[in-house]
Amino acid sequence: MPALRHDPISNRWIIVARERAARPQPRIISAADTSALDCPFCGGHESRTPPESFSLRSSETSANENGWRVRVMGNKYPALGPMATTAPRFVDGRPAMGAHEVVVESPHHVASAGALGVAQWHDIVLAYRQRLEYWSRQQGMRYALLFKNVGAAAGASQQHIHSQLAVLPVVPPAVEAELDGAHTYYKEHARCVFCDLVKREMEEEVRLVAQTERFVAFCPYAGRFPFETWLMPRHHAPYFERLPNSDTEQLATILREVLCRVEACIQPVAYNCVFHTSPFDTHDLSHYHWHIEITPRMTTVAGFELGSGLFINPLPPEDAAAILRASSIPPQIT
Amino acid sequence: MPALRHDPISNRWIIVARERAARPQPRIISAADTSALDCPFCGGHESRTPPESFSLRSSETSANENGWRVRVMGNKYPALGPMATTAPRFVDGRPAMGAHEVVVESPHHVASAGALGVAQWHDIVLAYRQRLEYWSRQQGMRYALLFKNVGAAAGASQQHIHSQLAVLPVVPPAVEAELDGAHTYYKEHARCVFCDLVKREMEEEVRLVAQTERFVAFCPYAGRFPFETWLMPRHHAPYFERLPNSDTEQLATILREVLCRVEACIQPVAYNCVFHTSPFDTHDLSHYHWHIEITPRMTTVAGFELGSGLFINPLPPEDAAAILRASSIPPQIT
Repeated sequence: MPALRHDPISNRWIIVARERAARPQPRIISAADTSALDCPFCGGHESRTPPESFSLRSSETSANENGWRVRVMGNKYPALGPMATTAPRFVDGRPAMGAHEVVVESPHHVASAGALGVAQWHDIVLAYRQRLEYWSRQQGMRYALLFKNVGAAAGASQQHIHSQLAVLPVVPPAVEAELDGAHTYYKEHARCVFCDLVKREMEEEVRLVAQTERFVAFCPYAGRFPFETWLMPRHHAPYFERLPNSDTEQLATILREVLCRVEACIQPVAYNCVFHTSPFDTHDLSHYHWHIEITPRMTTVAGFELGSGLFINPLPPEDAAAILRASSIPPQIT
Repeated sequence: MPALRHDPISNRWIIVARERAARPQPRIISAADTSALDCPFCGGHESRTPPESFSLRSSETSANENGWRVRVMGNKYPALGPMATTAPRFVDGRPAMGAHEVVVESPHHVASAGALGVAQWHDIVLAYRQRLEYWSRQQGMRYALLFKNVGAAAGASQQHIHSQLAVLPVVPPAVEAELDGAHTYYKEHARCVFCDLVKREMEEEVRLVAQTERFVAFCPYAGRFPFETWLMPRHHAPYFERLPNSDTEQLATILREVLCRVEACIQPVAYNCVFHTSPFDTHDLSHYHWHIEITPRMTTVAGFELGSGLFINPLPPEDAAAILRASSIPPQIT
């Protein structure tokens, strides 16, 4: 069973999960790579996955049969299980409780964001919100990390379009660091750093990638990766799971647009897309703002980055934004 | 020119370095991959690199000609230059001063640690020490990060055996975090956490990989990667550049042994090797201990790791150590 281990020197947590060793290895994404016949995520192959925890499906169909539009189930090779025990040690070990779900984003064997229309992306956004809302009500769970790995270089082991949800009993260190940074800024300025960032980016325009009335996407000034793009609400909103119904369609539209622009700029396609939101057990945070970080993986996280925690970005974010704005979006096919 | 940019939310620094975009892309390591004719690092090709800053060579030869055993020069695609200017901004930007050197570890076109004998590794250790000692005396420089990328998945763009040295005007955040963790432990226990770690690992034995009278290598309890191995002096020593002459040969022996064991367990070979040492502008630290972290790259740093700062290791370090101990070391050929 997965176990959390702590390193007191770096203050780093790791999860030892033998279960993950058996999973398929990351593969290069390409249409020819995996046939739909072999794919466990395709509609009609429901018996090849763990049972579903949520789906959006036509009312005539039942759970775990075909007829769904978006389907959520437990990861077959979970990094987090319901329970594990390790004896306490010199360096702290504790059970890695939690959950590890997969969100399959289409019953069809497609890999790219542009292969799905806005209506399908709307269903996907609704499924994301439902899962976060569900897990926010479960006892002992403090955070849910929603993320997408696309392409082998970004860690994808399945080509079929999907995301993952890691539900954790701890607030992950990277999120803690952001909360700390945002809190420090709030104490100094009495304003949310994300709200200020949105204002500046809208004014300066040079790093903008896309916008709607309620959302904006831009290449962050200190982006780690070429074409790194952040997407966030233009008004203060700490919790993704409280996304109002009035905003879901706009989010679907801009998320599809941004992913399409990123995919158009990277060959072979490889990126991560990570939702950052407030921990469940906080209350109306004034200093934190949910957002999505899209990090293309054209460069390798190598010895310098691992050893220093510094990143080298060979493409200035201002140039990246100009290229992303000029890239084309596939027409809607659904 | 490279520039440092700061993100106040994550408190993360990045280096924007257009210069890096032109460098060769990482390649899979294999004997057939690059011919010695094309290799800028081979003996006889000195004119294809920037001029050398240090070399160990036969006394009849001069700088920048053949006849060297280990050769150090500026990186052709530097991430850190002598100077750059960016205007101060909302999010802090400052010049990325520093230096970025390459240590070529053999005049021969070899890729693996085992292709070099202990005598050559001794020269390499002496070159490492000389460069850190040299940079520790240069004004404005606070840290030198010595690291090795081996294999495409670990970010290597040249197959020929080499390391890199990034000399920085700041203490890198990952090192700061370690210094903080080690200081916290010292305040609580009045002992160096590394000294305690060495003691426990020697007692428990289950994670040991190799040892000499002065050094020990083990798989850390909370290792991030399969086969991750740390190598450190058995007695307190904060500064790598103060390595005594009496220890250089033992370090060469155990470093070669550990790298050979790691290379024997990974196909295709891909790992980083990072030296962690105390910042230059500190004084006889009681709580920090220099060490080497070897991180094989069989798993991908994906969305989960980027978003959470948590790592998933599918191979328990105890199992990894047993496999590493059982692996064979190539015989000395030099």
